[in-house]
Amino acid sequence: MTILLNQNTVVAEIITIGDEILIGQIVDTNSAYISKQFDQIGVVVERIVSIADTQEAIETAMREAEARADVIVLTGGLGPTRDDVTKHTFCAYFGDVLVENAAVLTHIEHLFKTYVKRPLTSLNIKQALVPSKAMILKNNFGTAPGMWMSKGKKAFISLPGVPVEMKGIIMNEVIPRLAKIKNLPVILHQTILTYGLGETRVAERIEAWEDALPTGVKLAYLPNFGFLRLRLSVKGTIRAEVEALLTQKTNELIEQVKDIFVGYDTDGEIETSVATLLRDAHKTLALAESCTGGAIAQRLTKHPGASDFFKGGVVAYNATIKEKVLGVDPTLIATHSVVSHEVAEGMAQGVRKAFDVDYGVAVTGNAGPTVDGETKTEVGEVFLSVASPTGVVTERFNFGKPREKVIERSTVKALEMLRKVLIENQK
Amino acid sequence: MTILLNQNTVVAEIITIGDEILIGQIVDTNSAYISKQFDQIGVVVERIVSIADTQEAIETAMREAEARADVIVLTGGLGPTRDDVTKHTFCAYFGDVLVENAAVLTHIEHLFKTYVKRPLTSLNIKQALVPSKAMILKNNFGTAPGMWMSKGKKAFISLPGVPVEMKGIIMNEVIPRLAKIKNLPVILHQTILTYGLGETRVAERIEAWEDALPTGVKLAYLPNFGFLRLRLSVKGTIRAEVEALLTQKTNELIEQVKDIFVGYDTDGEIETSVATLLRDAHKTLALAESCTGGAIAQRLTKHPGASDFFKGGVVAYNATIKEKVLGVDPTLIATHSVVSHEVAEGMAQGVRKAFDVDYGVAVTGNAGPTVDGETKTEVGEVFLSVASPTGVVTERFNFGKPREKVIERSTVKALEMLRKVLIENQK
Repeated sequence: MTILLNQNTVVAEIITIGDEILIGQIVDTNSAYISKQFDQIGVVVERIVSIADTQEAIETAMREAEARADVIVLTGGLGPTRDDVTKHTFCAYFGDVLVENAAVLTHIEHLFKTYVKRPLTSLNIKQALVPSKAMILKNNFGTAPGMWMSKGKKAFISLPGVPVEMKGIIMNEVIPRLAKIKNLPVILHQTILTYGLGETRVAERIEAWEDALPTGVKLAYLPNFGFLRLRLSVKGTIRAEVEALLTQKTNELIEQVKDIFVGYDTDGEIETSVATLLRDAHKTLALAESCTGGAIAQRLTKHPGASDFFKGGVVAYNATIKEKVLGVDPTLIATHSVVSHEVAEGMAQGVRKAFDVDYGVAVTGNAGPTVDGETKTEVGEVFLSVASPTGVVTERFNFGKPREKVIERSTVKALEMLRKVLIENQK
Repeated sequence: MTILLNQNTVVAEIITIGDEILIGQIVDTNSAYISKQFDQIGVVVERIVSIADTQEAIETAMREAEARADVIVLTGGLGPTRDDVTKHTFCAYFGDVLVENAAVLTHIEHLFKTYVKRPLTSLNIKQALVPSKAMILKNNFGTAPGMWMSKGKKAFISLPGVPVEMKGIIMNEVIPRLAKIKNLPVILHQTILTYGLGETRVAERIEAWEDALPTGVKLAYLPNFGFLRLRLSVKGTIRAEVEALLTQKTNELIEQVKDIFVGYDTDGEIETSVATLLRDAHKTLALAESCTGGAIAQRLTKHPGASDFFKGGVVAYNATIKEKVLGVDPTLIATHSVVSHEVAEGMAQGVRKAFDVDYGVAVTGNAGPTVDGETKTEVGEVFLSVASPTGVVTERFNFGKPREKVIERSTVKALEMLRKVLIENQK
């Protein structure tokens, strides 16, 4: 078994430009997207930097990045307005001048003719100005092109900050070119999800095994909201070998934590695993959500193809909806309160019946921030229920505070319970 | 009018630590949260850096930040496991040693007694080790304390990476201390939302006005998903003067773009504005969501107090649900298809009746990625409808591609339409 580390390590640095990031107006999601794509082809992002949209800040960041990295990606600052200065900074940095690019101008004219249905203005035409030495990266979703500038062996890549435009250029123009670099390492990750034991206890339990991990294998602990994710990363030369080592180490790890093992973590997206199980089994699903307020439905439907198995759901925020729409027996609510084992069960069975599906999942609880005035339910108390052809499973939890944590944990736990039932029903 | 800029400018830099950021496994939301809180007290974040959790990377980033900033905030790398190295790096950087802190140990013991109900292990006890010169910042939601280390006039603040823990320490320990710095500037922002005219056209229209903006006033263009946000920022000494200038400039700006003005943008959170309108008017709301799949409900209910006005909703992903649960006339669906003006209207009226509320909002459309097999609806085509005591308003849109954009734009536009109707009904 040879996992060698003497490959062609290509180091990248990402520079995201915009005051909106520095004042916390937006969360920078661009760098996570780029990092993930780069990781998949073995290009190692060592640093992400967010800076203001001034020429000085951009030049400083470029200079620092050039000293450390082989590929420098910049996002933002490419619009036609005066707060966008990346193009001018490129010219200053590389001693270049802006020239009108015919292909870009044609593309802008095409976009305007098709979608905007207005003539170009002088500012629109200015978007076709690019540094003369830049290679153009076509932007299918907007007017500002991406630019690739070479300096020695280093590549500077400038992309628009609008996520959908940036993503298109990364996938269509940047990744295919970088993937051609010879001898890029293979870097693979597997994350497993555990629940019920703290980071410390897990670390103590697997200490000897972790100590003995070979070079090229790395373990990370990612605790959040009571769950602990354990990520194994393996770096090597040959994909088959890296895959084999990752599988071996993952299995060894799972064996040691099998009492708290919840499942594999596909990008933290439990819903993709549930979707696959439902789709493969040709089963349908409906949801009855109270305190999660649509969060489970939203998570399932953000992925294409959810209509294959998801018929719909009810957000029963008010008690009357639980009775009227889901058909929960009012005496159950009166006797046990709206946040109870019995009502969760009634909601799951009710939505299963009302929506005529195989699986009904229900959530009722108090996400906070205050104790429920009517029911006196504690903050964080949640009942989750899964009704299926084989019966109903209901569990009680206290997910603590704050609100966002209760919603997130209820959502994940409900999907986990559903996954468990789906797997059992397959047997 | 004196807007002076000779205040005590306190520059901050944020360093977020963790390989999970650099491989794109998670989006770094911590830095946006910290930036926003700092901005509100006049501390200027000039740079955000994400790095690996190695001692070398952390020391380099600290050294670079020290040369530029007055306040350096680090998040992450504080867990008890071996991939967490921030504490040791602090000791190396400041020439300090780790000592057991009695108050921290007592807090950890308290947390374990109350929640974990297990004795402390040696690794847990290690979390009470802190650099001897550090001031401890209490972590109410976890075992790893925050640490504040002074070096000359510079402050280095180390916080846990778990968002809920980091947020608690920022609000309870960091902001109160930084806010005491004398003569911090007042920095205020107002963002307005426009729709229907590109960045370029808006820039051309307001060019003369933008040229004449006084020192201390800055305008930024933030295009996304067809909307254009315009953010005005004013920096000055005296809050009342900054507020007055910001109001004046905002009004001047709105006057110039009133044909495309959609509304004020409160943190981009249109739902908070809708919530306030509904709450103040003592009106109730229910939702009938098709292609948004619960995204609108989720957005409304993530904020506390949504139950004041939100009774619930139906995610009608499947056509039969539109008929059975919302009571949409099946002949409407058969005649006009499920994605149509008529069905949107029927859904809005249906949910208004079924949930017995004042306002019913409905969405039906095709979020993609493919043309709907049954209805032949184009990708991106969406009908939005608001039913209220004064009638029904329904509009047709094409939000293009990709899926996430269609869902996001449908969500925002539905809430915008609701806001408009709410404002009109108040008159």
